[in-house]
Formats: sequence, C-alpha cells, structure tokens
Amino acid sequence: MATTFVRISDLKSHVGETVSVRGWVMTTRSSGKIAFLTMRDGTGYLQAVFPKNELVDGAWDRFATMTQEANVLVAGTVRADARAPGGFELTATDVTVVAPSVEYPITPKDHGTAFLFEHRHLWLRSRKQVAIARVRNEIEHGISDFFYDRGFIRTDSPILTGSIGEEAGELFATEYFDLGQAYLAQTGQLYIEATAAAHGKVYCFGPTFRAEKSKTRRHLTEFWMCEPEVAFADSNENMRLQEAFVSYLVARVLERRQDELKELERDTAPLEKVIAPFARITYTDAIANLQGQGSDIQWGTDLGADDETALAKAYDKPLFVMNYPKQVKAFYMKENPDDTRTVLNNDCLAPEGYGEIIGGSQREDDYDRLLARIEAQGLNPETYKWYLDLRKYGGFVHSGFGLGLERTVAWICGIPHIREAIAFPRQIHRLYP
Amino acid sequence: MATTFVRISDLKSHVGETVSVRGWVMTTRSSGKIAFLTMRDGTGYLQAVFPKNELVDGAWDRFATMTQEANVLVAGTVRADARAPGGFELTATDVTVVAPSVEYPITPKDHGTAFLFEHRHLWLRSRKQVAIARVRNEIEHGISDFFYDRGFIRTDSPILTGSIGEEAGELFATEYFDLGQAYLAQTGQLYIEATAAAHGKVYCFGPTFRAEKSKTRRHLTEFWMCEPEVAFADSNENMRLQEAFVSYLVARVLERRQDELKELERDTAPLEKVIAPFARITYTDAIANLQGQGSDIQWGTDLGADDETALAKAYDKPLFVMNYPKQVKAFYMKENPDDTRTVLNNDCLAPEGYGEIIGGSQREDDYDRLLARIEAQGLNPETYKWYLDLRKYGGFVHSGFGLGLERTVAWICGIPHIREAIAFPRQIHRLYP
Repeated sequence: MATTFVRISDLKSHVGETVSVRGWVMTTRSSGKIAFLTMRDGTGYLQAVFPKNELVDGAWDRFATMTQEANVLVAGTVRADARAPGGFELTATDVTVVAPSVEYPITPKDHGTAFLFEHRHLWLRSRKQVAIARVRNEIEHGISDFFYDRGFIRTDSPILTGSIGEEAGELFATEYFDLGQAYLAQTGQLYIEATAAAHGKVYCFGPTFRAEKSKTRRHLTEFWMCEPEVAFADSNENMRLQEAFVSYLVARVLERRQDELKELERDTAPLEKVIAPFARITYTDAIANLQGQGSDIQWGTDLGADDETALAKAYDKPLFVMNYPKQVKAFYMKENPDDTRTVLNNDCLAPEGYGEIIGGSQREDDYDRLLARIEAQGLNPETYKWYLDLRKYGGFVHSGFGLGLERTVAWICGIPHIREAIAFPRQIHRLYP
Repeated sequence: MATTFVRISDLKSHVGETVSVRGWVMTTRSSGKIAFLTMRDGTGYLQAVFPKNELVDGAWDRFATMTQEANVLVAGTVRADARAPGGFELTATDVTVVAPSVEYPITPKDHGTAFLFEHRHLWLRSRKQVAIARVRNEIEHGISDFFYDRGFIRTDSPILTGSIGEEAGELFATEYFDLGQAYLAQTGQLYIEATAAAHGKVYCFGPTFRAEKSKTRRHLTEFWMCEPEVAFADSNENMRLQEAFVSYLVARVLERRQDELKELERDTAPLEKVIAPFARITYTDAIANLQGQGSDIQWGTDLGADDETALAKAYDKPLFVMNYPKQVKAFYMKENPDDTRTVLNNDCLAPEGYGEIIGGSQREDDYDRLLARIEAQGLNPETYKWYLDLRKYGGFVHSGFGLGLERTVAWICGIPHIREAIAFPRQIHRLYP
C-alpha cells in the first residue's frame, strides 16, 4: 500500500501520484475485466477504477467482498477527469477491507421516515443529509463572521435558569441541588440585555428549549437560536440589522455552497432575490390583507402558519410584519407610542411558505411599565429583579431579535421539515438516538 | 444636540466633527471652570471635557446631576489626543441625562465575591469583566475560524439525551413527555463520532452539564466545551491537532487582544512560549515523577489538581500526559496495545498551575471490546445501540478531544477562578441571576 494517505478533498494536489484513500463504500459494480467503486470519506466522493490485470494479487477477490458502508483502504494513482465527481478519479492497484459492514440498514430503496430517524446516526451519512449539514455549517460560521466583523461581542447565556423567558408551562425543569427547580432557557435574550449594557453590541448563539406539544414541521423541542442585542438601537434599526443579516447568510451560502444546493436540487432563483431592504407591513394591515383574501381572522389574534404563508406569497423576499397586539406578545416588548394596543416588534417571514424565521422587538426600557407588565402576566417580580435592574441603573433604548437556525437552514436548503436541519432532532416522541 | 450618533470605537473616523455619543457614566470630576467625564458605551472608553464657558445653557448644571452608570447623551467635537484612552477625546458642548442611576450597587470600593456574583448582571459592566468577555469572544471566533479553515464541519450535538456520556449519577434529569427521563449531555462526543463518519472531520461547540458537587475553582455545573472528532486519526495525530489548536488560540489572543490583556495585567511572556509541539509524558512516567517529588500517589489513581500543577511546573508550555489506567477513564477510550492496563488517551495540562484544559483519546472502534466495556461499567447496551452501530457498519479508527472553554479563558486571561470566565456562571449554590 502507498503510505501517503490523502483525503478526497485533497486529491487535487496529488494528480499523477500513488496514494492511499480511506473511506466507506457507497456502490460497487464489476464487468469481468474492470470494476468500479464509488466511495466517500466525508470530505468528498470518489470513483476508483479497478482494471483486473493491473491489480496486486488478491485485490480482485477482496473487491468482491466489499459491501455498502464497509470501511476500505484503496491504493492507486490519482487522475484528473472532468467527468468524475469532484474532477478526479483513482486508478486502483489494491484494496483492503479494514472493517466490514453486514446488512447496512439504509439501502438505496425507499425507507419510511420513522425508520430513517430511528437510524439517524447512519442516515446522516447519505448524500442529501451531508449536503444539509454542510449548508448548516456554512450558516453557523457565517453567523460568527457576520457579528465578529461588525464588532459584536458573543456572550453566552445560561441554559439553567431560575427565571423564565416567555411562557411558563412550556419549560423543561430539573432539580438543582438545594436551590429547587431550574428551567432550561427558552431564550438567551434577557441575559444578553445585561451584556448589551456592557458591550454595546452582543449576541448569543446556542440551543434553546420548548416543552410545548407541537408536532408541526416547524417545531423542535430543542433548537438553536442566534440572538443579537444592540444598545441604543430602536425597532427600526433592529429591522435594518435583520435584513442585512439574512441577506448576508443567503448570499454566503449561494456563493460557497453551490454543490450542496445542487445535491439538494434547490431552485436558487428565489434565493438570489433575497437582498435588503425587505418590505414592511403592520400587523393591522396584515389582518386587513388576510380578510381581503377571505380569511375570517380578527384583529387581536396571533398569526398562524397559514396566515404567514398567505401574507408572504405576495413578496419574493422575506417580509417584516410589525407592531403586533400587546396581548399576543411577550411582556418585555416596548409599547408602541403611536398605537398603545400594539408593541414595537416584528416577525420576519421567509418566502416560499417557510414562515417566521425571526422574531424581534424593541425592549421595554421603563422600570415602572416593565414591572407592571411582569405583574400583569402573573410572573414573579423577585425572579426578575436583576432584569428590572437594567432599567434602574442607566436604562437604555435597546432592541434585538432571535433567528431560528433550523428554520433558516430548512428554508435555504428548500427542505419541507426542520427536523432534517439538525443532526439529532428532538421532538416530543423522539429522544433517540 | 448633534444628530450624528457615533459609537466610541468609531470616533477615529470623525476627528474634528461635532457628534453625539451615547453611553454610561463611569466617573466625573469638576474644578469650577472645567469638568471631566469618563464614559463607556460598550465599544470603548471616552473622556469628555466640559469647559464651563463653552457649554450650552443648563449643561453645566446637568453635568452635576450625573451619577455612576447614568445613561447620558453627550455632544461635542472629536479631538485626537494620544494621551486619551483610545486616542480620542471629546470637547463637549452639551450633555443630557437620558436615564438616571441612583445608588448603583457596585462602587469603586471593594466588594465581596458573593455580593459581586449576586450583582453579576451589573458587574459585567466593569472594565476587568469587559476585558475577560472580549478575550472569550476572540477565542470563540477563533474556534470557529480554526475549524472552518481546516475543512471541519460543525455538527451540533443534542443536550437532551437518553444516553449517558461518562459517569451516571452526575447528570441533570428532566421529564420528557411520555418517554421518561431525559438527561442533559455531559459531552457531545458520542454523537459527533456518528457525524465524523459522515464528514470525516467534525466538531461541536456548546454548553455541557455536570451535576457534580464540586466547589473547586475549576468547576462549573454548566460550561462550554469545544469537541473535534477526526476519522482515520489515531491518538498521535490527535495530540498534533490539540497542540496546533491551543497554539493558534493563544497566538490569536496575543495578536488581537493586547488591550484586554493589559487591562487584566496579564504577564504575556508565558503565553508567548505556547508554540507547538508540546512535550509528552506517559501517565506511568508521571507517577514516577510525582513519587520522585515526594508524593505518595500510587499507580492506578487519577491525577488531582495538585498533581497536575506539580507535573506541569517543569514545562513552560502545555504538557501532554498520555495513557492513563483504563480503570480511571471512560469506557469509550481505546485500549493501549502496548500496555493493556492503559488506554490511548491524553490530557493536556496548561502551564502556570492551570491544570487540565483538554481531555482526548482514540476511541474504541471494535464492536465486541466496546460492548464488553459498556457491560463491565454497568451501562445499558440498549441505550448505546446506535453508538455500537458505528462499530458494526464500517468501523473506523478515530480520535477526538474536548477543550473546556472557561478553563482556557481563565488561563489565557490569568484569572484564578473559572467562574469569571463566563457571563452567568452556574455553581451548585448559584442559579441567579
């Protein structure tokens, strides 16, 4: 065996050389005098050609023992070939089966969804799942770049909390030593409002938790959220940051992940149109619009997924819907001075029926008003003492938002359900693997 | 007021212009005809000079009402001044107190640790805490850059799990709908061993949880860990990746966060020596070394914090200690073929008494051996079925490690306790704020 081990993505630097490649078997076929292997090593896909007459002793027989997902070591010469996947091919001289794979559960035939999620740890190796993960990786590094380059400080918010982000009753709880119950955070926002006063521009990025019994294609019990918070920014500036951020992420994936989007058969034309600024409509206008479309929705109720789709279909970019009724939104959103029935918030609806990917708002910065809202919602002010302090000592105008990572990945990849947008999805009936 | 609002970090582009700066009061002093304000807006620190005769009506009186951490709006002209913090000063013409701050709890006098952590949400605004957070931010973006640039795919591992990473009995548990208990993950490693087979080189980066009752300066119940995993890498390659990674992070902070290291009065000379490669000793040699130093430690026991300090003090770089006894390490570590009492693992000990910042190992890739280890530790093989599958279908040599973020931040910042290395630390007696 050649002792130069090369990953498939690095073969381009070894044309004409004899190398060894380690990876897993995808498919094999043989025609008596020549055999073909397609393999993957995680960094790429490779075809290796085995001419029977040019192989070392025993290699032809060993080729015949290879099965799907066996771990193999192939030696051969790297050849550039424009028709090959990745542009390179291996003319093999030898192959060894390092570790077998007997009756691999996921075959080229169709499997049911439940079966695939039960075998998620293996299903992740399939081409489409690999492509989704690589788009997700691009978006995650894009998040880090976007905020770092703009002077934001990442401040990680705690998962274990004594206080409650949005709605009680949808929280996972755990015993916390002698301190009673701790709750898994639904949001890092309240905490990064504190760090925004320390650093001006901050964000957190991590897992968040909702113990709600939703089974829709837009819900997970554990999902990742990116939440920026900016001191001295109002709701208007907040939307400008959102449209800059979303446009950046989409443009970055289009620029760097074309292969993966092709693998996913994603029509990229709708993505090319995602350029700031985005249109803005008020909730009140949205209700009138929906009623005009024949809906019987009434002012004061929250928008559902179908309403979001109906509103967004008139736009070929994401759409901001602003100033929702106070009663359907969280206590920390600032009252709209121009219409005190509403708050200075916005949702950002993705096009193509993907619905809400961002929720954002200007925060209530007045101590007395915030305390009244906390009390009105039956929350315990003692738990929020530290949060109220932010309004007591140099209160400041500030705004922020939360972008749901899996919803964003699902939209950009063009996949129907967010459960494929994360490696190991958690749903109310799924905790394994 | 001037309508051009500028953040302090951007003042360099506005020299000679009249601008408004928003921020919080740090200190004020006045001498009858001239007054001085130092303020911060999160992006930097600024001195504003108020010549009484040049102020607009009422501004002198308003200046007198400013208290620590009041939110103020200052108008003036930007002047370059090499002696000023940040290199710029404001010659003010006007000031408005936007929001007051009455009896701010954290004054320049010394406060006790318990008091400061009880007011962590405000303490984070102080100069030293700001500097630590900025070093942490640099390290976090460094993590993202390091792995992205080397072709690693970030794959987020779940927090809510049915399976157990290392030791049972130190896990936070929560009711999970009809599926019984879910446990908060102590590590993402087992999951990213699955994604390593999909992508070759992967990492996860997120919060991890230990419900252990440790009260040391090196323990938190919730802490962030960065865990890479590499297919086809053995223990030797694993250590090469670790030393490259740690050297990169240290060099990056030295290059980009000099101001913060100065603020922290960090002696940077020891950090400048942190260049790969690092020395490697075996656990067995480490025990002999400690016994030679007079310790009564016996072969077979794990190393404690004092042992780590005693070993590391002979080195001016991080030190690898390899091949610990099987009995003190986790079930998934691969047996050392040269000494089957031990495993192919390593810890990486930081210099200057900071102890373990990384634990890594080559993973057991043989199905039967792994199953035997799981059973020997009294764990339920059914829970680990998916993990065993990784050895059943194309088992592969692979290695990885976990770097503790807070320990790394504490070491690089030169602070004694890791609880200041995270915004909202969680300890057995602390869940607030």
